[in-house]
Amino acid sequence: MDEFALIRSLTADLPSNAQVIAGAGDDCAVLELGLPDRWVLFKTDAVVEGVHFTTSTPPEKIGHKALARCLSDIAAMAGTPVAALITLGLPREFDPGFIKAIYRGMKPLAERHAVAIVGGETTTNPDRLLISVSVIGTVEKTKCPRRSGAKSGDAIFVTGELGGSLARRHLEFEPRLREARWLAEHFAIHALMDISDGLAGDLRHILRASHVGAELLARAIPISRSARKPGAPGETTPASVKPPLLAALTDGEDFELLFTVASSDAVALLDAWKKKFPELRLSCIGKILAEPGLRLRESRGVKTLNAEGYIHFKQP
Amino acid sequence: MDEFALIRSLTADLPSNAQVIAGAGDDCAVLELGLPDRWVLFKTDAVVEGVHFTTSTPPEKIGHKALARCLSDIAAMAGTPVAALITLGLPREFDPGFIKAIYRGMKPLAERHAVAIVGGETTTNPDRLLISVSVIGTVEKTKCPRRSGAKSGDAIFVTGELGGSLARRHLEFEPRLREARWLAEHFAIHALMDISDGLAGDLRHILRASHVGAELLARAIPISRSARKPGAPGETTPASVKPPLLAALTDGEDFELLFTVASSDAVALLDAWKKKFPELRLSCIGKILAEPGLRLRESRGVKTLNAEGYIHFKQP
Repeated sequence: MDEFALIRSLTADLPSNAQVIAGAGDDCAVLELGLPDRWVLFKTDAVVEGVHFTTSTPPEKIGHKALARCLSDIAAMAGTPVAALITLGLPREFDPGFIKAIYRGMKPLAERHAVAIVGGETTTNPDRLLISVSVIGTVEKTKCPRRSGAKSGDAIFVTGELGGSLARRHLEFEPRLREARWLAEHFAIHALMDISDGLAGDLRHILRASHVGAELLARAIPISRSARKPGAPGETTPASVKPPLLAALTDGEDFELLFTVASSDAVALLDAWKKKFPELRLSCIGKILAEPGLRLRESRGVKTLNAEGYIHFKQP
Repeated sequence: MDEFALIRSLTADLPSNAQVIAGAGDDCAVLELGLPDRWVLFKTDAVVEGVHFTTSTPPEKIGHKALARCLSDIAAMAGTPVAALITLGLPREFDPGFIKAIYRGMKPLAERHAVAIVGGETTTNPDRLLISVSVIGTVEKTKCPRRSGAKSGDAIFVTGELGGSLARRHLEFEPRLREARWLAEHFAIHALMDISDGLAGDLRHILRASHVGAELLARAIPISRSARKPGAPGETTPASVKPPLLAALTDGEDFELLFTVASSDAVALLDAWKKKFPELRLSCIGKILAEPGLRLRESRGVKTLNAEGYIHFKQP
C-alpha cells in the first residue's frame, strides 16, 4: 500500500460535523465558525531532516521553507493567514543556536504576511529534526476557489516558471498570497491550487475533483532556468537530469499558483495581471475539456500524460 | 540550555498581530477572528514513539492519546473543540494496519466530542512514528479562564485523582471538556489549566502567570490507586517508585483540571459538582496566597516545594 492509498483509506470515513465546509482533500480544511462572510482555513505541513532538507541546509532557509509551505496552502484557497503554531521535534543533541536560526528564518516571512506565531511546542524526535507548522487563516465565502470548480472550456493558467526548484527555489520561494487574493477579488476563478508535487500531478487533482480532463500546450509551459540548465551558478543541489519540459511538468516544490477561469476571461486577466504584477510571469498553458485524462499537445501530436511523464502516444 | 530556556528564548520576540488575544504561554493560543462573542482556540501537540509510547503500545491507544492530549488543552480554556488535523510522520517501513488502528482509536473520542477530523498529512520520519495533532476550538469570550487570573485568597481545586498515570491512565483518559465548560458556565473560574506535567509543576505556571503563591494541604491531595499501589493488576507499566504523595505532586500525564475560584464560592461549587458529576471526585487542595512560592502543609509543618519535590523545611 503506497502513501496515497493509505491516505485514501484513512480519510474515507472521518468524523465530521456541521461546521465542516471542506475536509481532507483540498489545500486547506474549510470551516464555518459563524463569521458573517468568511470561512476559517486550517492547514498543517511538516518538513523533516533528510527528507525535505539536509543537515547542511542553512537553518534560516529551513525555517522559511517550513512556514512558506503552509502559507502557500492558504494562498491556494485565496485566503489570508492569521496565525501559526510551530512544533519542533528535536534530536537529543541539538544546537540551540541552530533552532534560533530556524525561527529567525520564519520571522521576516511571518511579518511580511502579518502572520502571528502564537506558540507551539518542542518535543523529542531522537534521530532527526522535524518541524510541523499549523496555520489558521480566513477567506471570503464568495471568493474561495476550490479544486472542484474547473469547467469544460476553462483556460488553465500558471504563475512563475516551473521545474528545477530543488536546485534553490524551494528554500526561498514566497507564497503567492497577494497574487491569489487579487485573482479571487477581480476574476471568477473556477479552480485554484498551489503546485507542490509538480504541474502534471497537481493538475490531475483539479481534474479528478472537477470530473473533467485537460489538454496542455507543450510550448506554452513556462520552464525555469534551473530546469533548462541544471547546475547553474548559485544552485546548491545538482538539479534535475530530466529533459526541461518533463522537469517543468513533474518536478515538485514549485509553489506556484495553478488555476482555471472561463476562457472568455482569459485575455482580460492576462492584461490586468501584467499591469498589477509586471515582474511575475503568468502563462495560459492549456484548456479544460469534458473528456477525462490529461493530454499534452506537442508539434508532433497529442500525448497522454501520467504522473511520471508520457505513456501513450495518440494521433492529433 | 534546557528545553524550557530554549522555549523562553524562542518565544520572547515572536511576530504578532491585532488578532492575538493570547499567544505562547497558555494552554491554547486565543484568537479574535471577528465572531461576536467567541474567541478561536488553536493548539498543537505531538506524541513520539519511544518518548510518549512504545512499539508495544496498542495503536488504538496511541491514537486516543494523541488526540486526547490536544482536546485536554481545549478543556483547559473551557472551550469547545471543532476540528482536528492529524500529521503522521511514518517510518520508511510501516504497517498500514497499524496506522489504520491509530485512526480507529481517535474516531470514537472525536465523535464523543463532535470533533471533525478534517485531514492532515503523512510525511516520512524515517526512524520512528510521530503523530502531531492540531485542534481548532472556540470559547465564549466572557467564560475563558486563563492561567493568569488566580487571586490571593482563592481556593484551589483539582478533578479526579493524581499520580501513577503512566501505569495505564495516560493511554485512556477522557479530556475534561464537559466538566470545564460546566465550571466556566456556572462559576467565576479565576484560573484554569490541565495537569500534564504534574500538579506541582503545573500549578507553578498559574502562580507565575498570576504573580501569586500557594499553599497546598498534603492530606487533601487526591492520590490515585496507581500511585498508592504501584504494579496493581491490569497496569502495563511498572508504576512510580516515588512515595504516593510525591507521585501525586510530580508525576505527569494526569490530564485532570486544576483551577481556582474565590473561596466564597468553594462550598457552593463542591455541592453543585457532586450533583452534576457524582462519579468524578473534586478536591479542594489548598489556597492561593499573595506571597510567591509553592508550599505544602503537612502534619509536621510547612515545606517549600520545587518541581522535583521537597527542598526546604520551614517551621509552621
